This record gives sequence, C-alpha cells and structure tokens, in this order.
Amino acid sequence: MLEKLKQEVWEANLDLPKQGLVVYTWGNVSGIDRATGLVVIKPSGVEYDHLKVEDMVVVDLEGNVVEGTLNPSSDTPTHLEIYKAFPEVGGVVHTHSSMAVSFAQAGRSLPAMGTTHADYFYGAVPCTRAMTPEEIAGEYEKETGKVIVETFKDIPALEVPAVLVREHGPFTWGKTPADAVYHSVVLEEVSKMAFHTALLAQDMANMQQALLDKHFLRKHGKNAYYGQKQIS
Amino acid sequence: MLEKLKQEVWEANLDLPKQGLVVYTWGNVSGIDRATGLVVIKPSGVEYDHLKVEDMVVVDLEGNVVEGTLNPSSDTPTHLEIYKAFPEVGGVVHTHSSMAVSFAQAGRSLPAMGTTHADYFYGAVPCTRAMTPEEIAGEYEKETGKVIVETFKDIPALEVPAVLVREHGPFTWGKTPADAVYHSVVLEEVSKMAFHTALLAQDMANMQQALLDKHFLRKHGKNAYYGQKQIS
Amino acid sequence: MLEKLKQEVWEANLDLPKQGLVVYTWGNVSGIDRATGLVVIKPSGVEYDHLKVEDMVVVDLEGNVVEGTLNPSSDTPTHLEIYKAFPEVGGVVHTHSSMAVSFAQAGRSLPAMGTTHADYFYGAVPCTRAMTPEEIAGEYEKETGKVIVETFKDIPALEVPAVLVREHGPFTWGKTPADAVYHSVVLEEVSKMAFHTALLAQDMANMQQALLDKHFLRKHGKNAYYGQKQIS
Amino acid sequence: MLEKLKQEVWEANLDLPKQGLVVYTWGNVSGIDRATGLVVIKPSGVEYDHLKVEDMVVVDLEGNVVEGTLNPSSDTPTHLEIYKAFPEVGGVVHTHSSMAVSFAQAGRSLPAMGTTHADYFYGAVPCTRAMTPEEIAGEYEKETGKVIVETFKDIPALEVPAVLVREHGPFTWGKTPADAVYHSVVLEEVSKMAFHTALLAQDMANMQQALLDKHFLRKHGKNAYYGQKQIS
Repeated sequence: MLEKLKQEVWEANLDLPKQGLVVYTWGNVSGIDRATGLVVIKPSGVEYDHLKVEDMVVVDLEGNVVEGTLNPSSDTPTHLEIYKAFPEVGGVVHTHSSMAVSFAQAGRSLPAMGTTHADYFYGAVPCTRAMTPEEIAGEYEKETGKVIVETFKDIPALEVPAVLVREHGPFTWGKTPADAVYHSVVLEEVSKMAFHTALLAQDMANMQQALLDKHFLRKHGKNAYYGQKQIS
Repeated sequence: MLEKLKQEVWEANLDLPKQGLVVYTWGNVSGIDRATGLVVIKPSGVEYDHLKVEDMVVVDLEGNVVEGTLNPSSDTPTHLEIYKAFPEVGGVVHTHSSMAVSFAQAGRSLPAMGTTHADYFYGAVPCTRAMTPEEIAGEYEKETGKVIVETFKDIPALEVPAVLVREHGPFTWGKTPADAVYHSVVLEEVSKMAFHTALLAQDMANMQQALLDKHFLRKHGKNAYYGQKQIS
Repeated sequence: MLEKLKQEVWEANLDLPKQGLVVYTWGNVSGIDRATGLVVIKPSGVEYDHLKVEDMVVVDLEGNVVEGTLNPSSDTPTHLEIYKAFPEVGGVVHTHSSMAVSFAQAGRSLPAMGTTHADYFYGAVPCTRAMTPEEIAGEYEKETGKVIVETFKDIPALEVPAVLVREHGPFTWGKTPADAVYHSVVLEEVSKMAFHTALLAQDMANMQQALLDKHFLRKHGKNAYYGQKQIS
Repeated sequence: MLEKLKQEVWEANLDLPKQGLVVYTWGNVSGIDRATGLVVIKPSGVEYDHLKVEDMVVVDLEGNVVEGTLNPSSDTPTHLEIYKAFPEVGGVVHTHSSMAVSFAQAGRSLPAMGTTHADYFYGAVPCTRAMTPEEIAGEYEKETGKVIVETFKDIPALEVPAVLVREHGPFTWGKTPADAVYHSVVLEEVSKMAFHTALLAQDMANMQQALLDKHFLRKHGKNAYYGQKQIS
C-alpha cells in the first residue's frame, strides 16, 4: 500500500545524511496520505546505509501500525500531532542538525536576520517553551507535538515551516516530504548565518519588516515571480 | 548567439556549488558582451544539477529577453545596474555564501585585516546602507543595484570588486564571469578569516596602509610582479 | 590469537579517520578479551593508511607485549587503567578530536545541554583535575589513567562513557571497541553543539533533569523503547 | 638536476590543497639541497591542478634562477632568509590557512594550550612584530624573512617550527619539505583548537610547563619513546 509515498519518504530519509544533517540515526522523515489519513515513517534506530524502501512503516493517526514489521520511529507521536493540527502539511522531518540544535539548547528563537531566512520563513522560527516534568514523564513524544502546536497558535504553519523544540532540536515540515527536508537544510543554513551574525553584531536584531515581506512574498503567494512558471 | 559567452557563464554558474558557495539555487552568474550590450544570465530557480548551457538567457541592458525560453534570474535588474555603472566589469556573481552573508546581516563592512584580503581588495569591502521601504516596495531588484552603485561612488569598482548588500548578501564582479566567481571565493574566505580575527582581537582593526598597498599593488597595476608574465 | 577481537579493533581504528576524528596518527582504539585479560591495541605512530590487522599488538593488563612485533600505542597504560577499574568496559578510544579537545584545554566539563547529549551521556562529561608535576614526571600515561578513574569515583562508567583529560583531550569507552568509537563521534558532535550554545546563551546551563532522565532512559536501561527489539 | 628533491617538493606542494590548507594558489613549498646550497621551489601563480614536477624552479641562496623557465614563487626571498638563518631546516612552507591567518591578523601568538600543541611545538608559536613601512616599501619579501629570523633569536628553529607573520599568515619549516607540510597541518589544527578554547575560557592560558615538557620530549630528543624505533 501507498507505494509511491513510501518511495518519497524513503528518498527523503536518505537525503538527510547526504545533506549533512544527521549523524548515525539521528533523524527521521514521514509523509501523509491525506485521503486515507495514513502516515509513512522511518523505522526506529535503523542506520541510513541499510534502510530499504520496504522498511518504511505505515501507521494511522492514532499511531497504530497498519503495515510493516519494524517499530516506527520513537518520534512518531510528535509527527502525528503536527499532521493533526496542520491539515496543509504533507511531510515532517526531525533532525539533530548542529546549529539549529544550538539555538534550541540556548532556548532562543531564530530571528529573521536577512533575506536568506525571509525567502523561506515569514518571521522568526520560534523556540518552544520548556516542557513540564509532567509532560516529560507522561506521553512524552505526543506532548512534544502538542507543545509545537501550542507554539504555532498564532503562526500559519506553512508561513514558518519549522520549530525549535527547547533543549532538543528542530522539526520542519512542508507540503511534501521533500519540501520538509528542503526546509531542514535551509533552517540549518540560516541558523549558522544567524549564529555568526549574532557574534558580529553583538545582538540579534530583526531585519526590517519591508524586506522580510518583499523576499517571502516574491517567492510565495499569488504574486510570486521567482523561478519558472509552475504548470500544475 | 553569443555561444562562447554562454559557455563561460554556464561554467561559472556550475563553479558556485563546486566551490561550496551555494545551497540549492541560491546564486547566479552573468556575463556581458560589451560590443552588443547583451547580457547572458542564469535562468531563475533552476537547480545547478539540471542546468544546461542552452538554458542561459540573453537579455539587453533594459532587461528585455532577447533569447531563451526560461525566465532570467530574478536578480537580473541588479546585475544590469552594475554593468551600466561600471563599464570595466565583464561578469557579475550573486551568492548567499555563509560568512559574507553574516557580515551583510550584521550591517558591517569587511575591513582589510591582512594580506589575503589585500591581494584582491584594495580596502574594505563596503556594506550598503539599508534600503528604504519605498525602494523595497518599488522596483526592488533594480533599486538593489542602484544602492550598490551609490555605495561605490568613491571606490573604483575593479579595486574592490565586491559589496555586501545589507540584510541580504554579497555581489562580486570582475573582468570576466570566471573572475567574478574567483572574487566570490576570496570574499567568503576573507570573511571567515575576519570573523575569527574579530573574535580573537575583540575588535576589527584595519591592517596598516603600507602593507595593504604593497600586497594589492604587487599583484595588480603596472608594476605587478606576482605570477608569470601574461602574454596578451 | 584473539583474531576476532583484532579484526574488531583494527576496524574500529580505521573508523577514526573515516569519522573525521583524527589527523595523522592522533588516536587509538583498543579492545579487551575479559576471559583472558588480554588487550588488543593499535601500534604506536603507524599511519592509518598503512595499518594492517596483523599490526595489532596484544598486551596483558600489566602492559607486557604478549604478541606483535611493533610497539603498542604510547597511551596503552592509560587504556589499561580504564580496563582495570571498569570491568564492564570492553573497548577504549583516545582521540584529539577538535571540539572535545577545546573543552579539555579550557578545563571545562561538558554539561548536558540537550537531548542529543542525554541520549548517550547521563549527565556532564567531566573534565579531570590538572595532573601534578610529579604525576607527569612519573609514569605519565599510567597516571593519566588513574586521574580518569579518580574522576569517575561517583559516576558509573557506562552511564557517562567519556572523559576530558585536562589540557589534553578525550577518552571514551563502551561495551565494545565499536561502541567506544560511537561515543567518540557523539562526544565531538555534542561538544560542537555545546560550544555554539554557550556562545549564544552566554553561559552553559544544564538542561532540566526530567528531560535528561527521559532521553537517557528511553534508550538505555530495562524500560528502553528506542530502536528495534534486540535479539541476543 | 636535483631530481629527487624536485619530486619531494612537487609532492609536498600537491599536499597543500589535499590537506585543505590552500585556496587557489595561496601557498608554496620549497626544499633545500644543503650540499650545493640550491633551493627547489614552486613557480609563482601556477594552479596546483596544472603543476608538473618539471615546473619546479631551482634557485641559489641569493635568489638567482639556476634552472627552470618559470618565475619562482614571489615569496622565494622569505624562504631563502629562513634557510640562511636556520641551517638545520630542509623544507619551508607558506600558506594562508584560515585559522592560523586569523591569529596572525589579530597579532596574537599561539600559546601552547594543550598536548596536541606540545607534541610538535615546544612553546608558543610566535607572532612577529609589525613590519615597518620602510621594510614593506623595500625588499619586502626578503624583509619578511628577516623579521621571522629576528623573532626566533631566542627560539631554536626546530623546537618551534612555525611562525605567524603579523597581518599576513603562517610559515612553517622542518627537516624535509614533507615535515614542513606536516607542521602546517598541525599549526592549522592547533590554531582551530586554540580559537575555540579561547572563547570557552575567555582568555588564553598557557598549559602547565611540566605537561608541555613531557609531551614534547616524549616525541622528540634523545629519550623519546613515541612511535616505532627508527632505523637510520
């Protein structure tokens, strides 16, 4: 079942080490089939070198395994909360990419400091609040997803398709699994730029709003003019 | 038309990812044929992996497409302002290379701090003023070019073949497209050195003028003695 | 003798340059056969490119060479102290990996700042006290091992399988030589994250205890649920 | 003439880009034949990709070209001063490697902060004084060599086989051209470690003398016991 989505999710998972975003097994990608409400996700703890397309696990939105012989990623409940809260999302990625983790560990949101950021994220990439001991002791991975969703109560999910989970690391998403990986690459790159900027500038000022608007909107939305015309 | 220049511009574009200067499609190179006033430039939003020499777009100095089926880079109007203002320039590059962007985001010019810089840039690489909301809301990419030109009103363009556009990133240029790419590589490298120097020195002092003169002038100008004799 | 262990130790040694942890000969891996009390270790000063499985040296716990024509690593006495003090350890690694060395040179323990750390180290990776001139002038490499053991008098060795020797660099260990290498990779990665976090946060706060518990214990101990079920 | 030395110098030059120490043509290696007093050096401004063993230039200690059709490196007079002042030196390297340049630009000597440094450099790698405008305007490259020699008036050249020329970058040396390249690699690596240590420690403390002695002397001098016995 869902052979095309499995292929997409498998390829998106293999992109993580290729893009330098993960060490060992420290990442996972999922994708959702909105028609059936089923999610395809990487199995837990399997090294990318040995990952086969048929290892992908299919779960429903309650986390029940529908197909597959391996355990799904232990982060599955986090992915599911994101899919449930943001119906426009088709793919989710979690990594421990180094610079994004550093912001998450510092408990700092990533401000929009320049046009590289503005081309993909329409404002700061927020850092969540710290999770409570009760949330951590309870259904931890599900609660992680809930804290992410809480953080986005006033932010449209596709305008800022990334979050920093405090003391943990980034989750990103997009219309497809490949989109979500793309946003992970961008997040790591703009985190690195913001780190160096912060040290040079001795603070982390936001870029001016007019320039943020210009760059995000020339790539996204109905008046976008970047790239070639899409035939869809 | 302009088959030789197209080849040069295409190769120069492919050099950007090879040199580690661009992620995805975040860069573009153009070249000008001064005899006809026509500019060859990368198409917008096409990945380097799939870029073919015949994809190159030919535009005139007003930005009209003269040949090619794809949209030219959305940064084309910026390139054109540079060609119009600096008649000695034959190639222009734009990237979002990480360390140069960090200086641009911090709003800091890149001072000449050592001989690596002095070998290519005869003084600080300037950071532009912030663009006004009116400039951003207007013909943004053309205005970007105008702000660059304004920044160089007292600087000979080939003595400092690079600029940092504030909150955005670097543009570089040179006598040819390959020269302009070379200057992008140097700019990223000296930005990285300057970043580390600034943190070690707790400020960013300029190097002494005598040494700046010596290094720039032993490579450039009529008494240069670096390298092999040019046969031209 | 010990052909299987020699193979494991040889492969683990070759992993060090592959993982970017060593320059030239700056590292070594050993493994112990607990049944005989014999240790297999890399020979001293041999480049990884030329390292053959039959070059591995077998020593007893007093450091006598039992098999092999080359000198064992000059760090052998340090490895032996670790094996003698921590009976659950099966492999030991020493490297001069860049970011871990930086913490060791700064004389700072590496605090648990996020879940990447918590997944492998149950608390701070400690930095040893400075060695005394007498220890340095005496049986230096053996004394290095003793200072490591002293540092762990209240820390279970497999809960924090790494140490920073002050003004020197990291040693890591694990149940097997491969485990010990894995922990060297993780240590370098979390050192890099902690460095960037420290600069962003202007201090190095520990993560909250509940989250440290959760992440370490979901991967380790009897209620672990990360990864696939082990068949053993 | 000197075919063996040419081969060594050529290979040592090719090692510079392989080791990530140079961008484009930013480096050069030479070697001396002490019997004849002739020096083999890289030609000026030739890219490493195109460098052939027969391109190597032979000069005497006054800088006269004895063999070769290309100009020798413009840094040749600096190399010659080093050979004239330090008779135990057989090879010299100049690079613009990034972290060593950063210390040179900051005008800071590189203190011995840990055993990685102590294994190769017996004390701080000194940064020269600034050159005077007269020295710069005169025989600049020769004066650069003289300032290096002046800096080592109380330091045995083979105990600290490296220097940072202020506002410029590193020169290293050794018994052979390959040794000199090795020291360039080590210098860049310990510069990177020292940079990170300085930021973590908020200052740059020297390591304790006893440990510096131990590490340098266990590798060098008549009681060295690191590595395999040399047959010579």
